[in-house]
Parts: sequence; structure tokens; C-alpha cells
Amino acid sequence: MSESKPAAGRLRGAKSPSYVRAASTPESRASAFTARAMLVSDVAYVLSAAELGYTPAGSAQKLIPALLELLDALDQVDMSKPAGDIVAQREAWMAERAGREHTAWLHLGRNRGESLRNYLPRLFFRQQLHEEGRLVASLLANLVRRAEPVLEAVSPNYHHLQHSGFTTLGEYLLSWAVVFERHIERIEQVDRRLDKAPSPFGGRSELARLYDRVTERLGFSRRAHLRRDGIWVHDQFTEPFFVLSLIAVDLARLAQDLRIWMTPEFGFVQLADEHAGGSSALPHAKVPFALQSVIGGAIMASTRLAGEMAASCNPSEGSEPLYQSATLYGLAEDIAGWTWYIADVIDKAHFDLAEMQRKAVLDYAGSSEAHDRLVYDFGVPFRTGHQVLGALVRNHALGEPPLDLKELLRRETGRDINVDPQEIMEIVLGKRLSSTTFDLPMLRETAATYREKSAAATRKFAGPSVVDRAAEQVLADARAWLQQANTQGGR
Amino acid sequence: MSESKPAAGRLRGAKSPSYVRAASTPESRASAFTARAMLVSDVAYVLSAAELGYTPAGSAQKLIPALLELLDALDQVDMSKPAGDIVAQREAWMAERAGREHTAWLHLGRNRGESLRNYLPRLFFRQQLHEEGRLVASLLANLVRRAEPVLEAVSPNYHHLQHSGFTTLGEYLLSWAVVFERHIERIEQVDRRLDKAPSPFGGRSELARLYDRVTERLGFSRRAHLRRDGIWVHDQFTEPFFVLSLIAVDLARLAQDLRIWMTPEFGFVQLADEHAGGSSALPHAKVPFALQSVIGGAIMASTRLAGEMAASCNPSEGSEPLYQSATLYGLAEDIAGWTWYIADVIDKAHFDLAEMQRKAVLDYAGSSEAHDRLVYDFGVPFRTGHQVLGALVRNHALGEPPLDLKELLRRETGRDINVDPQEIMEIVLGKRLSSTTFDLPMLRETAATYREKSAAATRKFAGPSVVDRAAEQVLADARAWLQQANTQGGR
Amino acid sequence: MSESKPAAGRLRGAKSPSYVRAASTPESRASAFTARAMLVSDVAYVLSAAELGYTPAGSAQKLIPALLELLDALDQVDMSKPAGDIVAQREAWMAERAGREHTAWLHLGRNRGESLRNYLPRLFFRQQLHEEGRLVASLLANLVRRAEPVLEAVSPNYHHLQHSGFTTLGEYLLSWAVVFERHIERIEQVDRRLDKAPSPFGGRSELARLYDRVTERLGFSRRAHLRRDGIWVHDQFTEPFFVLSLIAVDLARLAQDLRIWMTPEFGFVQLADEHAGGSSALPHAKVPFALQSVIGGAIMASTRLAGEMAASCNPSEGSEPLYQSATLYGLAEDIAGWTWYIADVIDKAHFDLAEMQRKAVLDYAGSSEAHDRLVYDFGVPFRTGHQVLGALVRNHALGEPPLDLKELLRRETGRDINVDPQEIMEIVLGKRLSSTTFDLPMLRETAATYREKSAAATRKFAGPSVVDRAAEQVLADARAWLQQANTQGGR
Amino acid sequence: MSESKPAAGRLRGAKSPSYVRAASTPESRASAFTARAMLVSDVAYVLSAAELGYTPAGSAQKLIPALLELLDALDQVDMSKPAGDIVAQREAWMAERAGREHTAWLHLGRNRGESLRNYLPRLFFRQQLHEEGRLVASLLANLVRRAEPVLEAVSPNYHHLQHSGFTTLGEYLLSWAVVFERHIERIEQVDRRLDKAPSPFGGRSELARLYDRVTERLGFSRRAHLRRDGIWVHDQFTEPFFVLSLIAVDLARLAQDLRIWMTPEFGFVQLADEHAGGSSALPHAKVPFALQSVIGGAIMASTRLAGEMAASCNPSEGSEPLYQSATLYGLAEDIAGWTWYIADVIDKAHFDLAEMQRKAVLDYAGSSEAHDRLVYDFGVPFRTGHQVLGALVRNHALGEPPLDLKELLRRETGRDINVDPQEIMEIVLGKRLSSTTFDLPMLRETAATYREKSAAATRKFAGPSVVDRAAEQVLADARAWLQQANTQGGR
Repeated sequence: MSESKPAAGRLRGAKSPSYVRAASTPESRASAFTARAMLVSDVAYVLSAAELGYTPAGSAQKLIPALLELLDALDQVDMSKPAGDIVAQREAWMAERAGREHTAWLHLGRNRGESLRNYLPRLFFRQQLHEEGRLVASLLANLVRRAEPVLEAVSPNYHHLQHSGFTTLGEYLLSWAVVFERHIERIEQVDRRLDKAPSPFGGRSELARLYDRVTERLGFSRRAHLRRDGIWVHDQFTEPFFVLSLIAVDLARLAQDLRIWMTPEFGFVQLADEHAGGSSALPHAKVPFALQSVIGGAIMASTRLAGEMAASCNPSEGSEPLYQSATLYGLAEDIAGWTWYIADVIDKAHFDLAEMQRKAVLDYAGSSEAHDRLVYDFGVPFRTGHQVLGALVRNHALGEPPLDLKELLRRETGRDINVDPQEIMEIVLGKRLSSTTFDLPMLRETAATYREKSAAATRKFAGPSVVDRAAEQVLADARAWLQQANTQGGR
Repeated sequence: MSESKPAAGRLRGAKSPSYVRAASTPESRASAFTARAMLVSDVAYVLSAAELGYTPAGSAQKLIPALLELLDALDQVDMSKPAGDIVAQREAWMAERAGREHTAWLHLGRNRGESLRNYLPRLFFRQQLHEEGRLVASLLANLVRRAEPVLEAVSPNYHHLQHSGFTTLGEYLLSWAVVFERHIERIEQVDRRLDKAPSPFGGRSELARLYDRVTERLGFSRRAHLRRDGIWVHDQFTEPFFVLSLIAVDLARLAQDLRIWMTPEFGFVQLADEHAGGSSALPHAKVPFALQSVIGGAIMASTRLAGEMAASCNPSEGSEPLYQSATLYGLAEDIAGWTWYIADVIDKAHFDLAEMQRKAVLDYAGSSEAHDRLVYDFGVPFRTGHQVLGALVRNHALGEPPLDLKELLRRETGRDINVDPQEIMEIVLGKRLSSTTFDLPMLRETAATYREKSAAATRKFAGPSVVDRAAEQVLADARAWLQQANTQGGR
Repeated sequence: MSESKPAAGRLRGAKSPSYVRAASTPESRASAFTARAMLVSDVAYVLSAAELGYTPAGSAQKLIPALLELLDALDQVDMSKPAGDIVAQREAWMAERAGREHTAWLHLGRNRGESLRNYLPRLFFRQQLHEEGRLVASLLANLVRRAEPVLEAVSPNYHHLQHSGFTTLGEYLLSWAVVFERHIERIEQVDRRLDKAPSPFGGRSELARLYDRVTERLGFSRRAHLRRDGIWVHDQFTEPFFVLSLIAVDLARLAQDLRIWMTPEFGFVQLADEHAGGSSALPHAKVPFALQSVIGGAIMASTRLAGEMAASCNPSEGSEPLYQSATLYGLAEDIAGWTWYIADVIDKAHFDLAEMQRKAVLDYAGSSEAHDRLVYDFGVPFRTGHQVLGALVRNHALGEPPLDLKELLRRETGRDINVDPQEIMEIVLGKRLSSTTFDLPMLRETAATYREKSAAATRKFAGPSVVDRAAEQVLADARAWLQQANTQGGR
Repeated sequence: MSESKPAAGRLRGAKSPSYVRAASTPESRASAFTARAMLVSDVAYVLSAAELGYTPAGSAQKLIPALLELLDALDQVDMSKPAGDIVAQREAWMAERAGREHTAWLHLGRNRGESLRNYLPRLFFRQQLHEEGRLVASLLANLVRRAEPVLEAVSPNYHHLQHSGFTTLGEYLLSWAVVFERHIERIEQVDRRLDKAPSPFGGRSELARLYDRVTERLGFSRRAHLRRDGIWVHDQFTEPFFVLSLIAVDLARLAQDLRIWMTPEFGFVQLADEHAGGSSALPHAKVPFALQSVIGGAIMASTRLAGEMAASCNPSEGSEPLYQSATLYGLAEDIAGWTWYIADVIDKAHFDLAEMQRKAVLDYAGSSEAHDRLVYDFGVPFRTGHQVLGALVRNHALGEPPLDLKELLRRETGRDINVDPQEIMEIVLGKRLSSTTFDLPMLRETAATYREKSAAATRKFAGPSVVDRAAEQVLADARAWLQQANTQGGR
């Protein structure tokens, strides 16, 4: 937001080095994420203003080629110089390329807020949500594909990291598909709210015309009517970042499971070599660095979101969080990286089905099913069944002589209950899995449903984003205008 | 999540006081927010299980009246005893009222997770979102109503707390209507995602029938198919709380404006006496305590959200954040309180239109409009106009002899520009507001649009929530069943 | 901070229900944590003001007994009524007990800020830091006591949850003693900074005398000189809470280890029955609910701290975070509960030494030691040793025919290295632990050192806190004054 | 923490691009902050290992010059390549410069954790705390210097942004000196805890000797004894960052005051032109961008701290927060930038003493002093005085006929009180400031005290940090060793 060049407007002299360090340097860091969109919006503005006759054609003929050239060379630009926001930076870059005289027309019809608080975050996040959607769709596809062949592969079910009945690896993987599929809808809903360009200030019809044209050129289907809605809101930052962070939280939860599953003590999964790290001190190690990065990163995203929201609790037309936007944009891109990585991990992980089956029966994991058998098939009161089975397990775990189940039930319920104690104990010990243990038809149906949903998600995010398509069109329009102008101008 | 009573299941003896303090005591704090929904869900379960023949009618005839009685007497219950979650607490409360024998059937077909992680947060937040929707609608209505008579009342426009052109009080108020109206859509979208009851574990058809019935009875239109989706997700906590926090952030931004506006130095607004606080030391003081509470509270909500998200970055079937749910639920209700308060403040605030108009012209606030005049009406390059006017202002502020505008423009542009220097200076000083200063037709149209949107929002949240309606129905069903059972049983 | 009673100072009429809900209701929640200290400070003020002749003896003779009585009956007081901060509440409570006429003298010489922002947080946190110090000392003692007999009990060492050399259970436990011992120093340093009472405003000598006396009576050894330092700072909230949160983070890290160690797959530790929870659905389960509570709670404390700090980033004499102080105080007390619980867990946990020893050798955990052998005893370049051993392990893990170590070393280093390949492989497989594996003398020395440090810490926090001692004294002084006054007054 | 180069240790093949993006790319970002310290520690290790005879002199003679050269050329190194942590990066950079054969000795005696989790954060933060101490001392000096001439310049005192008695500009500035001075002690205490190098793993005496030597060479006065204390702790990140963030919060509070004071409505302060920004749309604007950056930045630092703490609540030997360290280090440096800026702002700000004096009397700011007059000089009960003056003010504010003060007092107290109503009203209106309004002797004494404290702080942080001094020495030692080795080696 700051201008480090001398004598802007009312102020005299250069900024102090401390000012540059305090405001301009942090601002510059965001330019890596926003420079391209800034220049594309410049093309849209200059072209539209030239078409409408506000900017002299001659100046537009200088500005547009310089902008196109800068766009092409953007990778070589040192984004830290001059220190300042991208609005000030690109004006300095353009003055070098197109001359100060023509660059005087560059910023026509705008203020910084429209770029820094409207176009740039909206274009950035619309693009990033599209990319994230594509990656979530790919993770979805991998989850469903890996789940389908193992829908019936018995594996331990955990609750609070303790054994809690049984599941199958297929159910586990499929359940993550359900979780991630829900993010697709969120992405779409937030993108629709991001689809809003700023409004002009005041009542000049020239500005209204200019804004309408630029709105469309940048891929927006509507624009705000009040200036607050154009720039003095925060939801263009907070809401898309929340959706991305929510995805990161789910990635982290899955990563937490996987890294425990990959201990030799569990031994359920091995990452592909390309998805694990080595240790500089331990020649043998295969370390889940990237899973840790996902876990830690999701937590950082959660607190970074809090920072954005908390810093927005300031006078309504301020920009307190804006100076640190680089970390917001950076984490948004990191989240895409983590999504990509987890999709890859699921794609190539080696699951040890035998180990899972072997450990599924640890720790009396069948007690819940035995409980159901007592309750629904023999009419034992729910809590009574719970107590009786708890006593049975405690006794067994301590290696004491077996309790008499029928006697226990008689004592508690006052009636004879015709259960087979050995059958019950076998259920408790996980030796008798049956059709009541798993609902396989439901699993198969769910797999089919999510195969379709995954395909739909893949289609939805195939191809370029609305942002990319608009940019392509505006550059094409600019080139066409230029050609025509050069021809007409007889240059 | 913990059980403080002795000898549950496998474990022997009472919990240590340190265990109770570490886990059970914090859990109990949430019961104030969830007890009612817990008991309503108990009625739904017991009734459905009795209808399906799983729970003996005799036990249901004991349990249902005891539940209804407990619901009526809930205000008198000490929610801190026994320390523990509401699931354990209400079982203890019920054992006292309905006897241990019948209470043994109470928890049939469920685990704690379904209550603590599915029904209770979903019922709480669906109810709370409805209440919040109602309050946001009321705030919207007040904003539009106060805006309409003052659409043309000139007031200072601020950017970064500095003067930045002009606005009207009506535009200001209307612009908040735009901001808050967007939350209505968010509330609806999140409520649709919350509309999902849990799935049973395993393949027993008895459970599927029971779950289907309870699902409907608690106002849900569908249920999960996989157990993760039923309980091992976090979005039933994180997403509705995000939407509420986002509203809190907007309330805080408005509160920040108002408390600066109510300083004697600004003098733009006075809170009604009933909306301000006194000072214990300063007899004269009229203090914006509640505005501070809104501001600080929104920041706390932002970081509490981060806590919920970060604590969810743990193994996927854990419950790490759950023990502190009381502060999540409590802040959700506080946010409703802040919305109510701000709606009231807007309703009754006294705005000093004369003071606003007087101060609107401070600090050369018209410079932007003068700039537009130079650019669009006289073809002065954008940045040139900016520099020239900046010099003019600096000169004027320092009290130096006036600069010759025409001479300056000639020097910068190389041509004669036929402006009237005095007119330009008057525009700069805010002495010539015109149709280009404000877009009044647009303001009027926006006011009309938001009057309608506000009315639609009011209608949407009128009447009881789906949660309240379902609860009313399930209690009626239970009473009807009881009457019939008592009649049939010839008791 | 708000006053809900009518007609305080300049304001007319009662507060609106929305105001009460937005500001006063949240404030009331803190009273459970601060009421006692408030009343003790009231005794100190009234007594000192009476001694100095500012408050009429007759009024002090009414106020002091009422205060003492209220202190005794505090458990029965409904802290939610009247809604408002404890300053306003206790004035209402006292007016009922001592009459409005005498209560008019209660608040002499103070403003609310001094109570809410100075005395109450400082007294609360000094007390809480003392309590926390005592609990940390007890945890320290348990860690050292459990460590000493198992200093040589081999157990797996983990890094990133992967095997990384060897440790002993004794080293593990001792290392936590080192971590927690450091908090003792922090507690003391912060307590010294909290030891500062407020300064009066302005230059009245009456106030200076009153403040000096109250300062000493509340256990402070000095007071501020400037009013900002007395009340408009935040470090009385943020700094002690940071230290407590930092302890919580360490508790959480230990809890994370323990809950993985207690899975059946690891099987290293069993919690005592009194330290675990049962499951409402799984009769067999022994669940680490309280460990989860510690983990989730530490994360909530971290974000609550951020909330306090972020909300303090407001105009410097505001009170934005204050309305939510109940959750700050509440978490501070919860952290004490978690410390107590973890101290108890360490005290009674059953460690399975055999299982630890058995699993210590999993996954080639000795590779690092073999690496050192190659490097320091045979001069193999560090990275070369790393690569060669990595190849050996990979080969072994894939079940391929063994590699020829000497040949590999010759190829990499260009010289013959006279190692015994079988010895190296045995080291890699953890079959040859030796004096280079562990530094037992150092462990024993460290144990002795921390036994002493733990004893010193225990002594330091034995007995009542400075806050409790001061309170006892002030109440005794008040009773003595009262007796004398009653005698003299001949009542 | 990850290694992106192929076939390290047990793992085969290159990392996947998704792995690199998920873990290595974020890690690389920290290198800008840690590369220098890493290379200095490399010099310390290589030199010490050569001296001890572990690393062949020939290899050390290659490594040391390459390290020195790399240190000199560090500004030209592309820190993003190869993606990975600085440990992996510098090994790659060195292999290019010193050959793979000699670089095989570079990492001798270490693991990554010691660098990434011990040396680098400790060296970084010790350096940064020193720099911050220097800047805080400079801010202190400026505050005291600007305060002294205006100790008696009357200005409004605010509480909750409302007028609350009087202060002087000198008291205001001095009170910030008190706040910031306290950070000096914190910085020193935390630096002492950071002063701890890691311990070797296991019992090899070679390693103990190496570690002792490196410890001293890097400026540490002691080292850990247990490996947890060396690397598996978090307080080397969390605690120094807390202290820095706490400073940021105080800077933000001061910035919040200043930016309100610089509105035209307040008009108390003007930033120097070099400390303010311009607006791209408003030629006249003088905008507090950098103050906003300080405010928003302090909030981001608060939540970043929470992220570090929350992500540390994971298994105790993990590294979850580490991958995002760049933003921790970056904010630490930004905080130094903000301290510098605020010190400069205080240095050059123009305070408008006349405007302050004029506005000091707004809103009945003398009511508190009038209250004291009634209470201490006329024995009016405290709360009675409050009510009477409140009524007086309300009446005056509403423009109603003046109330009869003596009559009011008689009615409330039941006795005649001989006050001069006009005098009281003049006090209320701020027309009679006196020796009871300000405690000027105390102010002068405080100014003298803090002048001295500020000088002491300045001396304390003059000259290079312990880190810089150690680095200088280690480089000198290395050059000396090299010269001797080259001479002896007769190369």
C-alpha cells in the first residue's frame, strides 16, 4: 500500500529506510503471487480506457506492448524492487519500459484498494480454488480407486487410537472420499461469492462505463454497487482461505493416521520411496517428513486464518492484514501442494492387508458386536450387556479363571438367557465376523456413488479456470486492438 | 467423553480426582448448551426403540415420563454434577428418576460419539444458525430503515482513517446492509451441510431401522452412510462456527467505526443511554463497553476457531477439541448477543448530521473529485493530475502563496489547459459537491433492493427453527405413545 | 466493565437487554475466578481508608463485617447476578448487606480498571503460578523417581515416530524432568514482574498514602508510578498465561507420546484404571480421554493466548479482551488440572519393560551406531558410511542376498577397511548394545542433579502463596481493627 | 528436513515432485534466515573435527576454504535450489565446490535435528534478540528525549477512547518508556535460556569432545546432557518469538493511538513526510500505512506464535512446525523493522501541543477531579459524589437549567456541605487544573529514572552480539588453522 518513490501527491522527499522496512518490504513479498494478475488487469484497464476514448490511443499503443512484454518477462523481474506493493512496483517497472509520460495514464480510473483488495485477491483465489478443486478431485479419484478392490479387507477400527470394532480398508478409504467430496461444493459456493468486481466511486458515467467493461474482461459476471462492497470487505480473503484451510485440516487428519500406521509397531502402510525422506544421521530411516509438513502446515493455516480475521477487526476501511498477504497467498499454494502430495501418497502407498487383518482382533475389538448380539438377539438390557461383557474382558485380560456368562446374566437380569458363552467370547475376540459386522452392500453402493461423484468433480475442474480464460481473451483483445490501432495510425 | 462413575465396562474403581479435573470437569461445562438436545434425542431414541420392539414397553413407559419431567425441570439441574459429559450425566440423572433397571435401556443403539459429535453439535448449531439468521435479518432491516431518510446526508468518507472523498450517511449504512446480507446465504448453505444424522456401525438391520426413525424425528432429512461421516468429522463444529465468527468480524468492524465516531473529537454519533456504560470513577463518562466487547469478542472467536481447527489436526477418530466445547458453544451464543446489540444500536443511535457535513470537507477531501475533473473533462494524464493537485494541497496546507494551476499544468503537459483554478480549488476543499460526487440514483435503487432482501431474510427466519419444530413433534409423539401404551397396558 | 444498574453517573435509565447480553453477561463469567480477590482487596481498601480517616469509622464498621461475611458465604452467591463485572456485582451485593448509605464509601479511591486490570489479574495469576509451580514440582519428583530404577532399561528411541537408535526408559523420563524443570525459573521471573500494584491518578497526597498501604496489604512489594503501568498494560494477562500455556504444550507432547505408547500395537504403557475412561458402546475399552483433553486443551490455550494478544492490539487504554477473561482464567486453572493429572499418570503408569526391549530393535535401529563405528573406529568418511549402511539395510529389508560390506567400502573409499561385516550387521540389528550406545554415567549424574532440583522446586512452592499469606494478614488486621473500633466506639 | 537428492540411505530414486512441493519447497524458504549460521557452524564442526583428528586434514583443507568462499558469496546463492532444508542444500552447494569426496566429511558428528532444531534457531534468535534489544533501547531513548520538554504540556487523557481526566504529553510518552523498558529484562532472560548447545547421542567420547569444542565456538556457555533437551524441545522457537511478539503488541497499541491522533478530527500529531504514505487516488492524502502494517503485523505475530505452539502439540520428537519456519523467522525480523520505524516516528513526529490543550477539556474531563474534591475535601461519600456530579453533567449536556449542587448534596447526604458550586463546575469543565491534577515531581523523577535506564539499555546492546563475536572468532580460527595446515602440509 505504500509508495516508496519520492514526492507522491502531497508528501515531499523519500521514505525513511525504517518506513520502507516496516511497510514496503513486507508488501513486496506478495508480488510473487499477484504480479501476473495485476498486469492482466492493467491490460484490461488500458484497453478499455482507450476504447472508450479516455486514454489517448498513442499512450495506449505504448502501454499495451510494454505490458505484454513485461508479462512475458515476469519470471526475470526482481519482485523485491522497488520495495512496495505491486501497484507501485508495476508503475515503476512500466515507467522504465513505456516512459513516464505514457505511464501517467496507466493507473487511470482506479485506486490501489481496487487492485490490492478486490481484483488481486479475487483473481488469485478464484484461480487457486480452481486448482484446489482439480487436486481434490484427483485425491477423490485415487481414494475410490484404491478402496474398491479392498472393500472387504478386514482391518482394525480405531476410536481414540483404541480398537473399536472392525472396519475394512475399503471402508476407511471410502470414508475419506466422503469427507473430501464435500469440499467440492464449498469451493463452488465460495467462488460464486468471489465473482464480484468493484464499483466506481461517485457518479461519473465515464467511470461506470469503464468499470463495466473491465469487470467483464476479468471474468467477473457482476460488480459491486457500493464502494464498501468493492474493497472494504474482508471476505474475499477470509472465506476462500477458510475453505482451503478446512481442506488442509482434513489432509492433516489423514496424514496423522498414516504416519502412525507406518510405524513398525503398526506396520499397516509403507510410503513409496519417492514419498518419504531419509535421515542425515540414520542410514536406515524412511521418514514421513512430508506428512509432518502437512500436519504442521494445516495448523499454521488455521492460525493464519485467525490472524486474517483478527486483523480485520479494525476500522472498517483499513488494511491491517494486507501487509502480510504473502503468507496468506503462500499457504494457499502450499495447501495445493499438500493436496497433490496426499493424492500421490494414496495412489502409491503399499497397504499390508495381512498385518491389518492380524491386528484387527487385538484388544477384544469384537466386544461391541457381542454386545449387540446380547441386546438385539437375546433381549439383554443395553447397559447390563455392557457391564457383563466388561467384566468378562477384564477377567480375561488379567488371566483369571473364566467367568460364567450365563450365571452373570441371570444374576443381573433375573432370568435365564440362552446364549452360547463360547460363541460370545469368540465374537469378543474377533473370531466370528459376519454379515452383521459389516454392511457390505452399503459399502459397494457407496463406492459406486462416489466413483460417479469423483468423475463429476474431475470434469468440473478440467480445463482452464475462468480467470485463465478471461486473461487469455483480454490479451488476445489487446493484441487485436494494437494491430488495428497500429494499422489505422499508419505508424 | 469420560465416565466418572465406578466400574464401567472393563475398568475397576473410581476415577482419580486428577482425572476428573483434567477431563470430566471441562466436559461438564458444555452441558448447559447441550442438555436439552440430549434429552430430546433420548426421547426420540427410546420412543423409536419401543415402537420397533427393541426396548420393552414397560421400560419405555418409565423412561419417557422421566425424560419429559427432566426436560421440564432442566433449569434446576446442577449441570456440574456428576462431572462428566452430558451422556454420562443424563444417565446418572435418569437412574435416579427412572431406576437403574429401566435406565439400562436408555442408551440402546448408540455410542457417545453419536451424541457428542453428531446430534448435539448439529442440533445446537442448526438452532443457533437459525437464531443468528433472525438477528442478522433484524440488523439488516434496521440498517436499511435508518439509511433511507439520510441517503443524501453528506458525510466524510474515510480510508485508512484519513479523509477520502465524500459519502453520505445513507450510503454508509446501506453498505453495511450489503455486507450483512451476504451472511444469510452462508447460513443457509452451512445449515444444509449440517442436515445429516449419523449412520449405524455394522450391518444389523435393527440398527438401520432405528437410525432411520431417529434421523427423521430429530429434523434431519438424511443420514450418513459411513461411520466417519457420522462422527469422525469436524465440519459440524468448524464450519458453522466459522460463519458465526465471520459475522462477528463484521460486527467488530462496524463497532470500531462507531466507537471512533462517538469520540467528542469526531462527534458523529451518540449511543442511546441504554446502550452505553458508565464509569465507576468518572461521573461524566458514557463509555462504549459493549462495542469493546464486540470487538474483543470477534477476535476471540477468530482464535477459538483456530483452536478448533488446529486441535482437529490429530488422529482422525480422536476428540481432542471436544473437551473445551463449552467455549465454542458459548461464543456462538455470545455472537448472537452481539448481533442483537448492534441491531439495537443502529436502531436507536443518534447521528449528528450537521457535524458530519461540517467535517466532511476537512483535509482537502475533494481532491479525488478534482482529479477526475482534470482527467475526464480536460484530458490531463492521470498521474500528472495527481502530482499537480498534490502540490496544490501541500502548498495550501503549509500556508504558502497559492500556486498557479494553469502554469503547473502547462509545464507538466506541455499544453494550455483551460481549467478554472478557483473551481478546482473549491472542489478540492469540498465546496462544490455535484452529481458526479454521488450516484444518488444508484443509492436509491440499492436501498430499494435491500429493503426487499431484508424483508425476505426476515420471512426466512420467522417462526421456530427446524430443530424446535422437530423437538415439539417428538415430544408430542412421545406423549401420544405414552397415553396409548398406558391405556393398552391397563395400568 | 459495564454497569447494569440504573442511573449510574450521567446515564439515565436501565441498560437494554441486548447491552446486558453483549457486555455484562460475558463479564459475569469471570467472577467465579476473581470474586474472592475482589473482596479481599475491598477489605484492604476499606480498612486502609478508615485508618487514614478518609472513610468514616462508622461506615467502615458496617462494611468490613459485611465483607467478611460475604467472603465466608461466597460459595452460595449466584455469580451471574446482577449481570456485570465483579466490581459492579460486589457493590450490589454489599448494598444489600451493608445498606446503600455505607456502601457509598466502598469504592473510594479507585476506578474499575485498577480492580479488573491490575489487582484481580495479578492476584489471580500470582496465586495460579504458585499452584502451578507446586504441581510442576510434583511432576518433576514423579519423573525422577520413576526414572531412577529404569535408567538402564533399554527402549526404542523415536524420531519422527520412526526408530532412531536406542534409549532407556530412564533417559526418556529424565529428559521430561529437564524440560519441566525449566518452567520453575519462568514462573519465578514472571511472578516478579507481576509484583506491582497500580499508581493513583494525579497528585493528591491522600491517594498516594492510600495506595501505598493497599499495595503492601495485598502482598505487593512495589507499585507503579504512571497510570499506564498500573492498568493500561496487557502483560499482567499475556505473560503469565504464556508461561502456563508453554507448560501445557509440554504436557501435551508427553501425552501424545503416551497415548501412542498405550495402543496395543505399541504396548509400552498402561494407564491405571483410575486414569483412563470407559466407552459407552465398547465394554472392553480403556480410553485415554484425559490425555486427549490435555492435548486439545494445550492447543486451545495456545490460540486463547493469541486471542489475548491480538485483542490487545487496540487503542492502548481500551479493554477489548477483558470481557472474555473467564476463558483465560478458566484455562489457567485447567492447565493446573492437566499438570496434576499427568503427574498422577507418571506416578502410577505401568511400563512394560520387556515389550520396550523387544521392540527397541525393530527397523534397523542400530544403524546410527554402526555408522559411528565405521566413521570413528575405521575412518570411513561420514557420508560414505551413511550410503553403504543404507544400501545394506535396503537390501536386507527387501530380502535380497546380503551385500559384501568390505567390497562396498573398498569401492567407495578406494582402500581396504578391516571391519567385521557380521559385527556391523549385528550392531545395525541392535544385537550388540555397548557402552557407546548409552552414556550411563551421564544418566546417573543427571538423575542425581534433577533429584536435587526437584527437591528444591518442591521446597520453593511448599506452603501458601504470597497472595494467600497477604489475604490472611489483611483479614486478621481487619478483624483486629473492628474489635478495637467496636470497643472504642462503645457500640 | 527432507532430502530431495536421489538414493540417500535406504531410499531408492528421486523424490516425487509432489513430495518436493509439499515438504522441500516450504523448507527452502527458511534458508534465507539460516544459511549464514549454518555455514558458520559447519566451519566450527570441520575445524574442531580436524583438530581432534576425526576428519582428515586434507579434507578439512578443502572444506574450510570452500565454506569461507561460500560465506562470502552467500548473497548470490539461489536459496531455493535444490529444494530442501539448509542442511541438504549446503551439502549440495559444498559438493559442487569441494568435491563429493571431501564433502562426505562435512556432516560428521551431527544429525539434521541439531542444526535445524538447535543451532540454527538458537543462533538466529540470540542474534535477533540482540538486534531487538538495540532497537528497543533506541525507542526508549527517543521516548524519554521527546517526553522531557513536554512533561507539563496538558493533553487529554483517554480511557476507552473517552475523555478521562487529564494527562500531559510528557506523561504519555514516558509511560511508553516504562512499558518498553520491561522488554529489556525479558530479552536477557530468554537469551540465557537459549544459551545451550545440543548433546551427543550415546556414549562415544569422541563425540563428547567434538560437541564441547563446537559448543564453545558457537558462543554457547553450556550444552545439554540429554538429547531431548538438545533438539526435541520447542522453547528455542516459542519463547524468543513470544518475547518479540509481546514487543510487537506494544508497538501496535502505540500505533493505534497515533493513527487516531493523526486524524484531522483529533489533530494531535503529524507524521513526518518520510514516515507516511501517499494514496494512488487521493492527491492530498497522508496515510499511516506503516502504522497499519505494525498493527496488522502484531496480530499476525500473535497468531503465528499460536501456530508454533499448537503444532508443537504433537509426538514429542516430531518437527511439525518446522517446515513453516520461514514465516516465524521472517516475522521476527519484521518486528525489528517495526520497532525501528516506531522509534523513528517518535523521533520526528510533530505534536500539536495547542490542539491537545484545547481538546483536553472536552466532555467534562475534570469530573473525576471534582469528585475527589468532594470526597477528600468535603467528606462526601464516594458514590454519592459520583451520582451528584453525573446528574450535573447530564443536565449541562442537555442544556437544561443548572442544578443546585448544594441542594443536591443536602438531599443525598442529609447535611449542608459548604462547597462552591461554581468552582466545582469549573473543575468539571477543566478550567482549574492544579497540583492535584498532576503529580509533576513524580513525573520529573520518573523521567530521570528512565533516562538512566535507557542509557543502560543502550550500553547493553551496543557492539556485536555474542553470536557475531563467536562467528568472527571461529572464522579467524579457521583461517589461522588453514594457514598453518597449508604451511605444514607444504602444499
